[in-house]
Amino acid sequence: MVYLTRVEHFNAAHKLYNPKWTREKNEDVFGKCANENWHGHNYELYVTVKGKVDPDTGFLMDVKKLSEIINNHVLELVDHKNLNMDVPFLEGQLCSTENLAKGIWDQIQPHIPTGVRLHCIKLYETPRIFVEYFGD
Amino acid sequence: MVYLTRVEHFNAAHKLYNPKWTREKNEDVFGKCANENWHGHNYELYVTVKGKVDPDTGFLMDVKKLSEIINNHVLELVDHKNLNMDVPFLEGQLCSTENLAKGIWDQIQPHIPTGVRLHCIKLYETPRIFVEYFGD
Amino acid sequence: MVYLTRVEHFNAAHKLYNPKWTREKNEDVFGKCANENWHGHNYELYVTVKGKVDPDTGFLMDVKKLSEIINNHVLELVDHKNLNMDVPFLEGQLCSTENLAKGIWDQIQPHIPTGVRLHCIKLYETPRIFVEYFGD
Amino acid sequence: MVYLTRVEHFNAAHKLYNPKWTREKNEDVFGKCANENWHGHNYELYVTVKGKVDPDTGFLMDVKKLSEIINNHVLELVDHKNLNMDVPFLEGQLCSTENLAKGIWDQIQPHIPTGVRLHCIKLYETPRIFVEYFGD
Amino acid sequence: MVYLTRVEHFNAAHKLYNPKWTREKNEDVFGKCANENWHGHNYELYVTVKGKVDPDTGFLMDVKKLSEIINNHVLELVDHKNLNMDVPFLEGQLCSTENLAKGIWDQIQPHIPTGVRLHCIKLYETPRIFVEYFGD
Amino acid sequence: MVYLTRVEHFNAAHKLYNPKWTREKNEDVFGKCANENWHGHNYELYVTVKGKVDPDTGFLMDVKKLSEIINNHVLELVDHKNLNMDVPFLEGQLCSTENLAKGIWDQIQPHIPTGVRLHCIKLYETPRIFVEYFGD
Repeated sequence: MVYLTRVEHFNAAHKLYNPKWTREKNEDVFGKCANENWHGHNYELYVTVKGKVDPDTGFLMDVKKLSEIINNHVLELVDHKNLNMDVPFLEGQLCSTENLAKGIWDQIQPHIPTGVRLHCIKLYETPRIFVEYFGD
Repeated sequence: MVYLTRVEHFNAAHKLYNPKWTREKNEDVFGKCANENWHGHNYELYVTVKGKVDPDTGFLMDVKKLSEIINNHVLELVDHKNLNMDVPFLEGQLCSTENLAKGIWDQIQPHIPTGVRLHCIKLYETPRIFVEYFGD
Repeated sequence: MVYLTRVEHFNAAHKLYNPKWTREKNEDVFGKCANENWHGHNYELYVTVKGKVDPDTGFLMDVKKLSEIINNHVLELVDHKNLNMDVPFLEGQLCSTENLAKGIWDQIQPHIPTGVRLHCIKLYETPRIFVEYFGD
Repeated sequence: MVYLTRVEHFNAAHKLYNPKWTREKNEDVFGKCANENWHGHNYELYVTVKGKVDPDTGFLMDVKKLSEIINNHVLELVDHKNLNMDVPFLEGQLCSTENLAKGIWDQIQPHIPTGVRLHCIKLYETPRIFVEYFGD
Repeated sequence: MVYLTRVEHFNAAHKLYNPKWTREKNEDVFGKCANENWHGHNYELYVTVKGKVDPDTGFLMDVKKLSEIINNHVLELVDHKNLNMDVPFLEGQLCSTENLAKGIWDQIQPHIPTGVRLHCIKLYETPRIFVEYFGD
Repeated sequence: MVYLTRVEHFNAAHKLYNPKWTREKNEDVFGKCANENWHGHNYELYVTVKGKVDPDTGFLMDVKKLSEIINNHVLELVDHKNLNMDVPFLEGQLCSTENLAKGIWDQIQPHIPTGVRLHCIKLYETPRIFVEYFGD
């Protein structure tokens, strides 16, 4: 069993805002992150897959193929977007890094080729805050 | 003459959009950066001052004081904000990294203590794009 | 289950010196790290917690609260300190990165809120040496 | 149980080329990585060991000793080399990062001292691609 | 006057070898870098341009356009290549980082748009060695 | 003219303390940095030289030779040391990063070979604070 990770980058606007709450409660809970005019981040996304090495290629899987999956099913949808307004797979959810990591897992998992398994989504919101999700 | 640099961090939403142009022209010129629903970045800000070393302290200037100036006159105004909507010192300007760097220079320069000179504002918009401004 | 990590920074002086040994044996075992006049490091501290996402906030826990716990119970005690002389939670121990990571675990663990679990303390002593501790 | 990691650096040339295949098939599968005139990388190597802390030293193991093992049994063989032509422990294998990580595990594992266990080889081929191997 | 930098990445094989010298002299002068079977690097390339900000765009120049110039006139020629064998603009030269930086300047300079000036090529050969060239 | 930079690393203990002042005044001016029991840092040192490229080697100067100069005349004296107590070239000076950078310049400058000029000492005290000195 070997683990292979590809790192990709995107940037997006978002705010943390629970529509069931008053503006005051949102500001209490989320502080500056509740700014109604949005703020944003450069996100660093680490996608890790695991499996056996193919003896003919020496690859677990072709990392260019993994990069294409991430581009087609994640970056196309989130890069230079507003996470609260523009991203179908986050609709109706709080746009926290935790929920974004879980949403990215669900976007990528169906496209991983047979014989390989998605292992981890690791997502940096800032250079000092990151979330990891292992699918359960 | 010695140069001293303090690095600070903030994040913000913005879009690139010239109100004198049609939406089509904005999309032509600015591409994904013109997304009307905003996108955002983690900005890394390098502020460099220059001057002589004080023999009693060994300091060009106290770096905590420099950090306070950056916090009070820049970070308080831009961190977790929308650069187009929330930032008085960018009003009426295109919110490019170039203009943001120049605006930050103007915010910091008046507060640098006598005997020290502001040398450079360096601003990373992403880990692969940055702007430097030396005040003229 | 989601994992959330906050990265913090501190710096400190220390030496590696076993008082039960002669100076010669200390120099034999610890080399330059036994310098009786101390040396020091910038430490990068990664604190990882794990748990379920709160549907009302999208958070595992508020990362600002995690940062406060680290500041109050670790950074206040070790930042700009001498690990051998100034830090009660290291008293009587060798000031290795291994023991420091374990001590930091014990400082933080009691303050993690109910429903969340401390998962890992990862501590960089230099950019090329780090230790991880998972609590057992 | 504590985990200790040492990071080392080397650089090397290689190509991805399966001698059982035609040049066309190699170019199909490996793309630019099949360039017959070679290309190369700076590799960042993370070696992690695990075990108990020795109460007399505060160490899991002496990190200088770990560094020597990596230097003698890996870096001497791969640094400034051609992975396909110069490295006995890769003979007859595809020179992928996956196989290189596994080969490095086999080079290091026999030299880890009693009471300590090799835990992980993590190998960056570029800042955006890395492989991890845990020995099975 | 504002300075704008775009960072790009490529990797390549090379060796340092002066064909006018014996193998012994090459090994004396270049050490491990003279390995006849090649070695290689991940190169980080910083391209800095300078000029005035266009009031209609807020840009010194469109950074996507700068990225295209670098891709078309440098990366296409050097990425996943052998610098000694595959790169026309290095023909007949020692493949040092110094000469590579100067060659990259000459590749990019003619394509910089009117009103903007190429300011600096900065090239990392390893994370601990880099060269800067300002065109004279 | 080409500029070549070598990055090296060392760590050391120090305190900021002016012996002409009372302890109170030292604490007022230097805050936590005046801790009488010392604190410490990992320093990243960038040494830049400039000159012409030798057509026979493609080198400004051999970077291994530059590394040896830094090791022999700086790192041997400061690595794993107490800057206030152990370092002859800092005797009688405040151990600020500014003075340390100037002292390192004076240590390296006499050993730079003919035809090459020392250009800059850049010294990171923490990842967020650095000083540059150009020799005048």
